[in-house]
Amino acid sequence: MDEAAKKTALRMFTYGLYVVTARDGDDENGFTANWLTQVSFEPPMLAVSVENQSHSISLIRRTGIFTVNVLASGQRELAGLLGKRWEKVPDKLAWVAHHPGPNGCAVLDDARAYLECEVTGSIPAGDSTVFIARVVGAGVLREGEPLTMAEAGFRHAG
Amino acid sequence: MDEAAKKTALRMFTYGLYVVTARDGDDENGFTANWLTQVSFEPPMLAVSVENQSHSISLIRRTGIFTVNVLASGQRELAGLLGKRWEKVPDKLAWVAHHPGPNGCAVLDDARAYLECEVTGSIPAGDSTVFIARVVGAGVLREGEPLTMAEAGFRHAG
Repeated sequence: MDEAAKKTALRMFTYGLYVVTARDGDDENGFTANWLTQVSFEPPMLAVSVENQSHSISLIRRTGIFTVNVLASGQRELAGLLGKRWEKVPDKLAWVAHHPGPNGCAVLDDARAYLECEVTGSIPAGDSTVFIARVVGAGVLREGEPLTMAEAGFRHAG
Repeated sequence: MDEAAKKTALRMFTYGLYVVTARDGDDENGFTANWLTQVSFEPPMLAVSVENQSHSISLIRRTGIFTVNVLASGQRELAGLLGKRWEKVPDKLAWVAHHPGPNGCAVLDDARAYLECEVTGSIPAGDSTVFIARVVGAGVLREGEPLTMAEAGFRHAG
């Protein structure tokens, strides 16, 4: 395989930036994600790829639920903060204004919108696991355009 | 669930536009996709959601391979043409300059880049199926920015 071509082609993929939150009792976390896409209209479902070595994957596995916060244009700093590894900043959410959504997972006060999700399946994908989830709740918190990877200038968030 | 909020939140997701091609002997097809994301760095893997009622899903199931063509900025018309349903335009690829890549699936002459993929698994997702695939080949055909859904003004491509 042409490694340089592979790298270039994969960097041409277009992404938004999201914060995925999960909670199991007092153990809660949030991480910035860009490997995320809707996958079904009826019922509404989405997929998110989560690193196997992450803290949040154990929360999602245990509870089968998570919330996707859609970041808004201008929130690059927020995406960067929540993109730090849990091992380095285990209390990331303490630095960000948030409140529990109906399912208990954190909704960021400044998110553009959020979607509450229930996992229906998962499948291994190399260094990560892809979770397939049904959208079971949603809220819109503000107006505006979404934050994109292009705006943030990130190569990969998580 | 707040249906209006769900719709608004899902429309805030950010996507690129890609043409996924598949081939089984003389039976070949291509379709415009936006529900597509990288899902692993090592090995490099991606996921694409394919409608259960599509013609291409049977090709991908039979052969276990496909190619992702990354469209370039300015190629809205190409994305629209290849987004038409196979039942209406069964010879879509005949309208577009293309050549077979190393794996036999079509590479669009005007694509920004392409990635050859081998399916490693699939998982049901409502009206679609998510295919997880390993990137096994790649090529870069031209310079430029990728085509985004925002540029095209589409709400959903496939």
